[in-house]
Parts: sequence; structure tokens; C-alpha cells
Amino acid sequence: MASADERNSRTIHTAACLIIGDEVLGGKTVDTNSAYMAKWCFSLGLSLKRVEVIEDDESEIIEAVRRMSDRYDFVVTSGGIGPTHDDITYESIGKAFSLPLILNEDAYARMKKLSKPHPSQPDFSWDVDSPARQAKLRMVILPTDEARDQSKQFLFPHEDLWVPVNVVNGNVHILPGVPRLFEKLLDGLKPVLVPRLTDPEGKGLARVLISTPLAESAVAGFLTQFAAKVGPKGVKVGSYPRWEQNGTVTLVGRDQAYIESLVAEVEEGVQGKRVALEGEDDVAGGKKPLE
Amino acid sequence: MASADERNSRTIHTAACLIIGDEVLGGKTVDTNSAYMAKWCFSLGLSLKRVEVIEDDESEIIEAVRRMSDRYDFVVTSGGIGPTHDDITYESIGKAFSLPLILNEDAYARMKKLSKPHPSQPDFSWDVDSPARQAKLRMVILPTDEARDQSKQFLFPHEDLWVPVNVVNGNVHILPGVPRLFEKLLDGLKPVLVPRLTDPEGKGLARVLISTPLAESAVAGFLTQFAAKVGPKGVKVGSYPRWEQNGTVTLVGRDQAYIESLVAEVEEGVQGKRVALEGEDDVAGGKKPLE
Repeated sequence: MASADERNSRTIHTAACLIIGDEVLGGKTVDTNSAYMAKWCFSLGLSLKRVEVIEDDESEIIEAVRRMSDRYDFVVTSGGIGPTHDDITYESIGKAFSLPLILNEDAYARMKKLSKPHPSQPDFSWDVDSPARQAKLRMVILPTDEARDQSKQFLFPHEDLWVPVNVVNGNVHILPGVPRLFEKLLDGLKPVLVPRLTDPEGKGLARVLISTPLAESAVAGFLTQFAAKVGPKGVKVGSYPRWEQNGTVTLVGRDQAYIESLVAEVEEGVQGKRVALEGEDDVAGGKKPLE
Repeated sequence: MASADERNSRTIHTAACLIIGDEVLGGKTVDTNSAYMAKWCFSLGLSLKRVEVIEDDESEIIEAVRRMSDRYDFVVTSGGIGPTHDDITYESIGKAFSLPLILNEDAYARMKKLSKPHPSQPDFSWDVDSPARQAKLRMVILPTDEARDQSKQFLFPHEDLWVPVNVVNGNVHILPGVPRLFEKLLDGLKPVLVPRLTDPEGKGLARVLISTPLAESAVAGFLTQFAAKVGPKGVKVGSYPRWEQNGTVTLVGRDQAYIESLVAEVEEGVQGKRVALEGEDDVAGGKKPLE
């Protein structure tokens, strides 16, 4: 079993995203954070291996973060870190790794400095105890390993955001569920991560899309042989039908020049043409039956 | 260990959704099927407990479907059942439950009857072997338990769709990833499921939204006490901040009349008002800082 410090310094190959939210499973809210993270990982050449959406439930959170911390190099959680009773992510992750919850003075100082007074709380005081102050404090009482360097456990990727990215067990990064905050904080982690990527230049993966008017069954034979040829060279070939529109063939891999060298062969093989975006050649009303 | 027939007949309390797709994890495609299923489950009063997105990888598929089949009453998979080399869901799920892949005559007959000839394949023949025919056949060679009633393993919820819903191990329902097909087939399963729900009238869950202009920290105290009061009566209370807009409090449960009786108390407690949709009272440009 790797130590938290080992997890916090090793090369990052794989990523996972844990969405904690009754509101997503209940169909009230559409999760956009995992899709944002998928694009972000792709742009960094980081392989996102797993997304899971679970309930705001202590045992579910504990099981999922332990397993993900163990299996993947870089784990992000989203949600459950607000001031209300239904926010139990910090406590649950603390329990998962047997860490106490401790008031984080840095985060608290930033909260006091940067969180603007809410219009509905003109009389709020940081110095007088109140239910509102206690609720706010819940957001800065954080799972902490006192034996480890604090600066590796509490990141503040943005000057203008007080919310910390609490890094637990060396690789579990706890982010808020509000998409604007999630996105800003995830983006802010990039400089911390890039030196630890397999490609420390962070060039990311390359993807080429080739639109095809042919039926999937008509291109299956060509694609099977083609995938077998380029797979060993690190290129994944995908085929995606679309409802009453052209299908899309994708080539994904690290070696952009090699992928570019394959485009003409695929265009010929599927009687297609390269597109910048899936669907850019869509025909109004559709034009072909799905098979 | 329950038998497949037991899994196929017991009361359904819980659901899970497995999205199989490199294209989702790679950020090319935004998964909408799990969000559709979340709303669908809610409308039926079925508790969606877990969504997972995994790669098109045999060992990942095997691990996930075995675990989900064991833990949840009703499991749906999405994706990986087309005719191309990257579609490996049927084979992998067959392996997961040690079932052979067998040509399904019903599905094949429907395919021949209902799948219109693709414009690019005017000369296609079902009676002459060709790579295209072999590719199509891959879509009707399905994991099959020959010892069990076939009509429980292959459902055709729509008269106009040839694609079967293959039900493996009694509770794993294999659906295509193309959203239009996924949604039609899932909807088509409703009549099969409703008699097995805890509420066989399929009335679903009730949800009330109450918009609040207050900071989350200001309502946290009230909501904690309120949630403790109504939780034992089956009502879950959620609180969701939104960027520079009113927050939303939700009440969710089966007893609509009881939930209705609580609205006035919550409106008073959070100085808010009931809304039909989250955000319907949004103010252009936002109006309050997040705390």
C-alpha cells in the first residue's frame, strides 16, 4: 500500500471522478462536472478511467473514495461540501482514511477575507457565535493528516476563491459541486499536476473525427482491420452511429503526427471526410435510416 | 445468491445505470442517457442508486455488471452493442455470467423485417454472406441462458424497433447508447416494470422546490432541525446553492400530501417561495455573492 506522500508525488497516468449527489441521481440536476473533467483530462493527456455518481451517503462515499484512491492516480470528488445538513463529504472522507476533522486556519482566514457578506446577512459577525457562523465553519473543518505537510493537503488554486482543494490520502481532491466553482478550481489545479503527467509538457491527446455516410455494418470490416493495425501503435479507433445522420469514426492517441498520417487512409476506407466537430455536416431532417 | 429467475421477478426497489463508453470518458460525447434514466426512475418512484461510466474494456464491463447485478434490483447498461470492433458489450456481459452467445432468431427476423436498407448499401443481401452481413449479425448474437424462458431474456418493447432489450442474469438490461434508441427502449420497459415496483401504481416520487434568497449558512440551522423532523417520515431535505442566484431547498418523498403540508413551514423558515422549476425566479446578471 502506497503512502499518502507517495500517492502525492508519483507520475499520474489515470484519473477518476466521483460525483456525490442525491440531486443528480434523483434527476433534479444534470451533472456537468464530469463532462467538464473529461475534456480537461483529455486536454492534458490524462486517462479518465471512471466516473461514478453516488448518493450523499456516508458508507457509499467511504467505499467509493477508498477504492478510487487505491486504483487511480488522480481522483476528484464533486459535491457535498456546503454548510447544510445534507453536505457530508468532508466528514465521510475523513472517516474513510481515519483522519480527524480540524479547523483549517488558512482556509478560515481566506473565508473571512474573501467571502463577501451575503445581502441577507448584514449583521453577520465572525466574532460572535451564531448558527450561521457555525454553518460556515463546517466548510473549513477539514480532514487533516497532522503528520504530513499541510501545504500538500490544502491547495488554493485561485487567488480570489477561499474554497480550498482539500487533498486527502495524497490523491483524493475534494471539490465543490457548484459548476462554476468546480470548473475554476479544477482549472487551477493544472499547474500542480502538469509536472507529474506522463507527458510533462501537457500536450494532451489528439483526436481526429472522420464523418462517414456509410452504414456502420459497411465500415465494420475495414475498421476492424485498421484498428488491429494501429492499435499496437497507440491509436484507438472508435465508431459512433448517429440518428439519421452520418456516423463518426474517431482516432485517438498521443502521437499527433502519426494520427495525421492515417487520415487519408480512413477517409478512403469509410468514403468519408474529416470534420472538426461531430455533426458539422448534418443534413436538416436527417437523411438515412439507422440500420 | 439469487437465481436469474428470482432477480427477474422480485420487487424492484433500486436501480443502477452503467454507461459503457470510451467516447464519454474521453470527452467527445456528453452522456445524456444517465440523466434521462434518472428522471425516468424518479417518475416511477424507483431509487436510482448509482451511475457509473466505464471504458469499452472487457474486464471493466465484467466487474461492473456482476457487482451491479448483485447489488441493485434493476440494472441498465448503455452502449457498446453496435456492429463494429469497438462494440464489446454483448460478449463481455456473456462472459460475466458464463453465458454463450447464440444467434437470436426473433431479433434476427425483426432486424431483417424492420431495419430499412441503408442508402449506401443498395445491393445488400441477407442471403449472401458479406462483411456487412457478418457485422449486422454481431448485433443479434446475444448472451443466452438456454435453460431459461427466452421471452424473459429478449424483450421488444417497441413494435417499430428491431433492437432487443437483452435481459441477462434476470436484471441486467442491455440498451444501445444512441440516445434516441436508449430513450425509446427505456420508456418501452415501463409496462414490464410497473407491476414489480414497490408502488405498483407507478405514481413516482414527489418533489417540491422552494427558492430562498438567504445564504445557505443562514438556513442551515433551520434545515438541520427540519430534516431531522421529517426524515423519519420519509422526506429527504436538500439544499442547493446556485452561483449568484437564489438557492433551492428540495423536499422529496413518496407521500405527496404530507410533503404539501410542509411547504408553508419551509417557506417561512427560509423566507422563500415555492417554485415550479429551479431558477425560474433568477435575476439577470445575478444578485448576490456566494458565501
